[in-house]
Amino acid sequence: MINVSIAGGTGYTAGELLRILLHHPEVNIESVISTTSVGTPVAEIHRDLLGDTNLVFSETFHQPDVIFLCLGHGLSRAFLSDNNIPSSCRIIDLGNDFRNNPVFNNRHFVFGLCEQNREQIRTAMNVANPGCFATTIMLALLPLASRNLLKEEIHVHAITGSTGAGKKPGDTTHFSYRDNNISVYKPFTHQHLEEIGNTLKSAGNNNLPQVNFVPMRGDFTRGIFASVYTKWNGSLPEPEVIDLYKGYYRSSPFVFISQQAISLKEVVNTNKGLLHIEFHNGYIHITSIIDNLVKGASGQAVQNMNLMFGLDETTGLRLKGNAF
Amino acid sequence: MINVSIAGGTGYTAGELLRILLHHPEVNIESVISTTSVGTPVAEIHRDLLGDTNLVFSETFHQPDVIFLCLGHGLSRAFLSDNNIPSSCRIIDLGNDFRNNPVFNNRHFVFGLCEQNREQIRTAMNVANPGCFATTIMLALLPLASRNLLKEEIHVHAITGSTGAGKKPGDTTHFSYRDNNISVYKPFTHQHLEEIGNTLKSAGNNNLPQVNFVPMRGDFTRGIFASVYTKWNGSLPEPEVIDLYKGYYRSSPFVFISQQAISLKEVVNTNKGLLHIEFHNGYIHITSIIDNLVKGASGQAVQNMNLMFGLDETTGLRLKGNAF
Amino acid sequence: MINVSIAGGTGYTAGELLRILLHHPEVNIESVISTTSVGTPVAEIHRDLLGDTNLVFSETFHQPDVIFLCLGHGLSRAFLSDNNIPSSCRIIDLGNDFRNNPVFNNRHFVFGLCEQNREQIRTAMNVANPGCFATTIMLALLPLASRNLLKEEIHVHAITGSTGAGKKPGDTTHFSYRDNNISVYKPFTHQHLEEIGNTLKSAGNNNLPQVNFVPMRGDFTRGIFASVYTKWNGSLPEPEVIDLYKGYYRSSPFVFISQQAISLKEVVNTNKGLLHIEFHNGYIHITSIIDNLVKGASGQAVQNMNLMFGLDETTGLRLKGNAF
Amino acid sequence: MINVSIAGGTGYTAGELLRILLHHPEVNIESVISTTSVGTPVAEIHRDLLGDTNLVFSETFHQPDVIFLCLGHGLSRAFLSDNNIPSSCRIIDLGNDFRNNPVFNNRHFVFGLCEQNREQIRTAMNVANPGCFATTIMLALLPLASRNLLKEEIHVHAITGSTGAGKKPGDTTHFSYRDNNISVYKPFTHQHLEEIGNTLKSAGNNNLPQVNFVPMRGDFTRGIFASVYTKWNGSLPEPEVIDLYKGYYRSSPFVFISQQAISLKEVVNTNKGLLHIEFHNGYIHITSIIDNLVKGASGQAVQNMNLMFGLDETTGLRLKGNAF
Repeated sequence: MINVSIAGGTGYTAGELLRILLHHPEVNIESVISTTSVGTPVAEIHRDLLGDTNLVFSETFHQPDVIFLCLGHGLSRAFLSDNNIPSSCRIIDLGNDFRNNPVFNNRHFVFGLCEQNREQIRTAMNVANPGCFATTIMLALLPLASRNLLKEEIHVHAITGSTGAGKKPGDTTHFSYRDNNISVYKPFTHQHLEEIGNTLKSAGNNNLPQVNFVPMRGDFTRGIFASVYTKWNGSLPEPEVIDLYKGYYRSSPFVFISQQAISLKEVVNTNKGLLHIEFHNGYIHITSIIDNLVKGASGQAVQNMNLMFGLDETTGLRLKGNAF
Repeated sequence: MINVSIAGGTGYTAGELLRILLHHPEVNIESVISTTSVGTPVAEIHRDLLGDTNLVFSETFHQPDVIFLCLGHGLSRAFLSDNNIPSSCRIIDLGNDFRNNPVFNNRHFVFGLCEQNREQIRTAMNVANPGCFATTIMLALLPLASRNLLKEEIHVHAITGSTGAGKKPGDTTHFSYRDNNISVYKPFTHQHLEEIGNTLKSAGNNNLPQVNFVPMRGDFTRGIFASVYTKWNGSLPEPEVIDLYKGYYRSSPFVFISQQAISLKEVVNTNKGLLHIEFHNGYIHITSIIDNLVKGASGQAVQNMNLMFGLDETTGLRLKGNAF
Repeated sequence: MINVSIAGGTGYTAGELLRILLHHPEVNIESVISTTSVGTPVAEIHRDLLGDTNLVFSETFHQPDVIFLCLGHGLSRAFLSDNNIPSSCRIIDLGNDFRNNPVFNNRHFVFGLCEQNREQIRTAMNVANPGCFATTIMLALLPLASRNLLKEEIHVHAITGSTGAGKKPGDTTHFSYRDNNISVYKPFTHQHLEEIGNTLKSAGNNNLPQVNFVPMRGDFTRGIFASVYTKWNGSLPEPEVIDLYKGYYRSSPFVFISQQAISLKEVVNTNKGLLHIEFHNGYIHITSIIDNLVKGASGQAVQNMNLMFGLDETTGLRLKGNAF
Repeated sequence: MINVSIAGGTGYTAGELLRILLHHPEVNIESVISTTSVGTPVAEIHRDLLGDTNLVFSETFHQPDVIFLCLGHGLSRAFLSDNNIPSSCRIIDLGNDFRNNPVFNNRHFVFGLCEQNREQIRTAMNVANPGCFATTIMLALLPLASRNLLKEEIHVHAITGSTGAGKKPGDTTHFSYRDNNISVYKPFTHQHLEEIGNTLKSAGNNNLPQVNFVPMRGDFTRGIFASVYTKWNGSLPEPEVIDLYKGYYRSSPFVFISQQAISLKEVVNTNKGLLHIEFHNGYIHITSIIDNLVKGASGQAVQNMNLMFGLDETTGLRLKGNAF
C-alpha cells in the first residue's frame, strides 16, 4: 500500500482526490492536512464523503510515500520550504508553481502530462501536474506537435466549469450571476499559455506559432470544452491525420478519438479525454473535452502516482461517468 | 412626476427597482443612495443598466416624494433614526423592520399586500412591503381566510430562487454548490411565518391553525413556487371555491387563477401571481407562483407607490415576461 | 463471472447499468438487447462509453445468468411472455410490472428494496426493483414503520431530476421549458404510492395512515430530494429515534444518517441514501436523498444482483460521487 | 393604431412578439394565425400570457396593416403564395427566406438590420428580419466594415441559448442532455455566414476576408455571446477605433459600447446589443451579446415595424431586463 498525504485538504482538488483515493485499491490515506480545520472530520467539509471515511484533518503528515500538494497557486514553494519532507517522499504538485520552473530545493519536477511524458514520470520523484485548460488544449495539439506540423497560428476558445475557480465564493461564481450566463476572461493572456507552449515545443514543434486563446466562463460546474483550429496545408492527407492521432494515443488508456461530434458531458466525472477532428475551409478543427477536476487535476494526479509507483496507469481511475 | 429616492442602492432589490422605475412614466429618480459607492455610476454596479441611465450613486437624498428603503433586514430603523426625513415624504420599506411592528418614530406602516390592503395603502404615508415567501403563500390562502375557512393545519413547501438570498456571495449561493442542487433551510421556523399569520388573521380568519412551512433552496435565480394544502371538509362546494378565488381577485390586476397546472417561469420577470387549485383525498391543494424580485419585492413596492400616489395600479408594471 | 443480459438497452436505466457493470469485477455482459438498434455499437447511443466497450446491440440474449429488464413500464410482462427464458435464469425488473403484482408465469418477484428485504433477495430468482420516488420515501420511513410508529398522516414533497422522465424528448423535458423552472405533477395520485404503502405495511406498520405526496419536477438532471413529516407524539424520545434509524441501517452499507442538514448533490452519482432528522412543532421531519438513476434504479438493481449471487453487497458500487 | 397579424402563432418567436406587442401602445393585434390550433386561446399555448390577453388562434388574417411571418425557415414563400395579401399590407419575415434572396412575387425585401439600414427600412413595404447569430456578429463588425477595415481573416466563436433551436423537442434540446453541457455544431458552415458576408460587403467592405465561425450550443435558454477577433495592423489608433464604434452607433438607441468586460445576462430580455473591445497580440477582440429572441428575432422585428410606420424606434421596446 502507498501511504498518501494530502496538503491543502479542504479545497476542491483535495476533495476530488479523496473521492478517488478512498476507493483506490493500493492506497492508504495517512493524513489530510489543513491549517484551518485541524480536528474536524473530513466528511464535515467534503459532505458527500459521509459514510466513506472517518478521516480527520490533521496538522501535518507522518511518513507518507507521496504528498499531494493541493494548495493555492504559488503556495507550494512555501510548503516545501516550511516542511522538512524526506527526500524519499515523492511529491505531486497540483498547483502551478513548478510547471514552468521545475527546479526547487534540489527537487526536479517532471511535467506530469502522462500522455507525453509517461516514461519520465515512471521514474520521477516529483511531478508538476498540468493545468486544466492546458491539458485540454495540449491533448488537442500534441500529435501534430510531435511531428512538427504546427506551422500557422493556432486559434483556441475554451469554456470552463465553475469548479475551476475554486471554493472561495466570489462575484463571478455567485449563482445569481453565473446561472444562464457566459463571459470571457483573460483573453489572449491566460497564464496556461506558457505551459502549453513549453509542452508543444518539447514535443517536437521547435518553432511554435502564436497561440490565440480566449477562455470563457460557462454556467456549469465540471468540465472544459476546447475548440481549436489552425490552417492546414494538407501536407499530410486527412485520413493520415486521424491515424496520427490514433497512433499517438494508442497506448494512452484515457484518450480517445471520436468519429462523431462530442459534447462535454461524455467525459464528466471520468479521467478521459475525448477528441474529435474535422477539416473545413483549409483548417483542421479539433474539439477536446475533459473533466477539469479529474483529468484536469486530481484524476491526472492519481494517474501520475500510479505511474510513479509502478502500478497500472488506470488503477482506481475506471470511474463511472456522470453522463447527465 | 414623482421624485423618488432609493436607499441601499447597490443591492438586488434596488437594482430591480431601478429596472422598473427607469421606464415608469410618472417617476423621476432623484437619488440612488449608497454608503459604499458614492460617485460611482449606477450602471457600473447594475451592469445591465448600461445605456439606460447616467445616474451616479449619491450620499443622501434631496427632496424626494418617496424613499424606497432597500437596506438589509433590520437596517431600516437605523436609517430612519439617522436621517431627518420630512414627514411629507412617503416611505416604502422593502425590509422586514415594520411588517410585524408597524409603528416607529410617529410613523405608522401599512402592510403593503395590495390585494388585501388596497384601500389603506391608497392613503398611507408609510408602507411595509411584504416578504417574498409570505406574498406567495398569502396569495394562496387569502380568499379562504377572508371567509374564515382555514380550520385545519396548513402544509406548505415553497422553493425559492437564489436572488432571494441577496448579493453577498456565500457557501449556499456558490454556483458550484447550488447548480443542480436542492436543500431545505429553516424548516418550520422561517421568519415569514409571523407576517403570514398576522395577515390571515386580519383578513378574517380569527383562529388560525398551525402553518407548517418547509422552505427550500432551488437551483434557479428568480421566482418562488409554493405548494400549499389543507384539509377540506367540503363546507363550500368545489366550484364555489374557485368562484371565491376569482371573486376575491377580480379587482386585482396581477393575480389570476389558472385552470391548468402552472409552472414557475409563467411569472418570471412579471408582477403577476398565478394560482392553481385542485381537490384530492379530502384536501384542497393550491399552487402559487411569483417572481421573488418583482411581485415579491420591487414590483410590489412600485405597485404600492402607484396606489399611494393615486396612479393606476399597473403603471409601469406591464412587464414583458421572460417565459424561458 | 456472472453472465448478464440487458433488455431495453438504449434507455437511460440500461445506460446507467452499463456504466456500472462495465467496471464490475464479477460481471461479463453477454448481450445488450435492443429492438431498434441491432448491430449498432453501444457507445454510439451511450456516447460517454466510448473507449469503455466494444459491445454491439443484439437482437436477443444467449445464456445469461441474469437478465435486467430496462423496458418501459408495463412492457416487462410482454417480454417474459414473448421470450423463452430458462427457469434457471434470474430476472431483475427495473419497471413497475411486478412491484405490486409479484406473480407472473410461475415466477415470484421479491420486492428489491435491499435495506428491507435483504435476506429474501439473497435467495430470490426474481426481483422487482423499487421505483425511484418510492425508494427515497421508503428509506425515510422504514425505521418508524418497522416499529409500527406511523400513526398520523404523512406529508411528502419530493422533487426529481429530469432523467426520471426517460429518454424520449417531450414538452416537460424540453430544455427551454425546464431550465430554471419548477412544477408539480400528479399531486396526491402518483403511482408509487401503492408500493410505498405495501412496503411500510409489510415492514410492520399494519394500519398505515394516509400518505399525502406532492411530486415536483426540478430543473436538474439527477437525484430526488424528499421532505417528509408526520406528527410525533414523543412516545419515543428524540435521541432514541435517531438511534432507531442508525440501528435499522447499521448493516446497510449505503444508507447513512447525517447530523447536518443535507443537500442533493451529496449523493449524486453514488448508490447512497442520506437521511437527516429534525423535530419541530410536534412533528418529526425527515429529509431523504438518492440519485434516481443509481440507488433509485440501476445501482439498486446491481445491489440486488450482488445479493442474489452471494457477492458482497457493495461490489462494483463504490462509486466516486459527482459532488458538484 | 397599427393592425397586426402574426402567422405561425404557436412558435417561440410568435410568443415573444406577443409578449412585446401586447404592451405596445400603438398596436392592435387583429389575428394570431395557426394552422394547428384554430379556436384555442393564445394563453393556453403561451402560458405566461394568462391574464394578458383573451386572443384566440384564428385560421387567417382580416385586414392587417402588417403581417409578421413566424413560420419555419423556408415556409414564408409558401405562405405568400398561398395567401392573397394586399399590396398595401406590409410584411416582416422572421424566417430566412428573403435575407439573401430579397425579391419574391413583386415584393422586394429590405434586410432589416436597423443599425445599418435604418433609412431604407423607414420606407420599406417588406423587411427580412436578420438571423440571431448574424445580428450578434454583424453588430460586432459593422463599424469596421463601414470603413473597409476588415482585411484579415475573421475568427468567431458564438454560443447560443436553447430557444434558438425552436419549440419542437429533440435530442439536443432534451434537458437531460443539454443541462450542464456544451457542444459545437455546423462549424465553419453555418447558414448565417451568407447574410453576414452580404451585410459587411454592402456596408463598405468590398473584399471581405474569410469568416471562420464556430457556433456552440450553450446550456442556457436565452441569448448569444459572440467572441470575434481579427488581426489589427494599427492603421487606426486604438482610441480612434473605440470612437469609430461609438460614432457608428450614436443614433442607434439599443447598441452600446461597454468599457468593462460584458456578460450575457446584461442584455437578456432586452432589445439591446452590447459590445466590448480590447486589443491584444496584434488582434482586435470584440465581444458582442444580444438576446436571441428579442434583438435576434421578435424585438428587432418590432423595431423594424416602428421604423416602417414612422414611430420612434424604441416604442414598446423599453423592456425591463432579466439581469439574473
